[in-house]
Amino acid sequence: MIQVYTGNGKGKTTASLGLALRAAGAGLKVFIGQFVKGRDYSELNALKKIKNIKVEQFGRGYFIRKKPDKKDMELAKKGLEKIKKIISKAVCDVVILDEINVALKLKLIKLEDVISLIKNTPRKKTELILTGRYAHPRILKIADLVSEIKEVKHYYKKGIKARRGIEY
Amino acid sequence: MIQVYTGNGKGKTTASLGLALRAAGAGLKVFIGQFVKGRDYSELNALKKIKNIKVEQFGRGYFIRKKPDKKDMELAKKGLEKIKKIISKAVCDVVILDEINVALKLKLIKLEDVISLIKNTPRKKTELILTGRYAHPRILKIADLVSEIKEVKHYYKKGIKARRGIEY
Repeated sequence: MIQVYTGNGKGKTTASLGLALRAAGAGLKVFIGQFVKGRDYSELNALKKIKNIKVEQFGRGYFIRKKPDKKDMELAKKGLEKIKKIISKAVCDVVILDEINVALKLKLIKLEDVISLIKNTPRKKTELILTGRYAHPRILKIADLVSEIKEVKHYYKKGIKARRGIEY
Repeated sequence: MIQVYTGNGKGKTTASLGLALRAAGAGLKVFIGQFVKGRDYSELNALKKIKNIKVEQFGRGYFIRKKPDKKDMELAKKGLEKIKKIISKAVCDVVILDEINVALKLKLIKLEDVISLIKNTPRKKTELILTGRYAHPRILKIADLVSEIKEVKHYYKKGIKARRGIEY
């Protein structure tokens, strides 16, 4: 099945991490590819210790102040290639493409390539999870499950900054 | 801070599990109290192996066909008492009350007791996470963060049943 977690609220990446944990607990094999991200998130420490979960990052960090450049595009493309192989060889039961919607929005990768990856995923065999804001309507259309996480209220509006262990 | 994950979409419990994982990865101590649930979810296998995370269930399962009885209320109350102690002693940095909104909806526990628990939580010290559909407006009002997970599309409507490692 193809699952999408999108929207402007907190909980998209953590929902995919929880899924990874549940799948690993059931003995399934999980690959997490984190697009855009390249920073040392706390969850990596815990994930590395879990049997059946592999994580790899295909980015250099968020682009808040600067625009993505050639190197960022290369990393994202390399990530997509790797995931293509993982899916075609069916070596993992659950494949998570964290922040891939953001990678698409930033034009690091081509929409057609992601659509073709989704279409080539054997839905009965492989669970493919795509996360990130701005999910493209064409991706939503071909997904089997879409959860939109809406921000009803967020403490960053009170001036609370991202905290280690909670936000990253 | 007080975080609430509610709504009718898939991803509420998994978002809290992902938060637990991230917090544990940062060396924070986590307690997960699962209300209503009493079944052996796959995630428990994986969670048990993670240092810094403790999980306990305060229920006997979902009430799809039958109404909750005295025993279910006792278990939920016992859970709430335990969590009160954990919070007052500040032994954990992150405390997750999984499906507590459903426990409230089913009237297993009293709204006033949960409101008072939230009010007695030191927000700068303890991160309190409440999950489940039907979050009460009074809880939403006093929370610092509310994410509403909306079901845009779900494969159960295509007749796909819950799958081990993915849904439980």
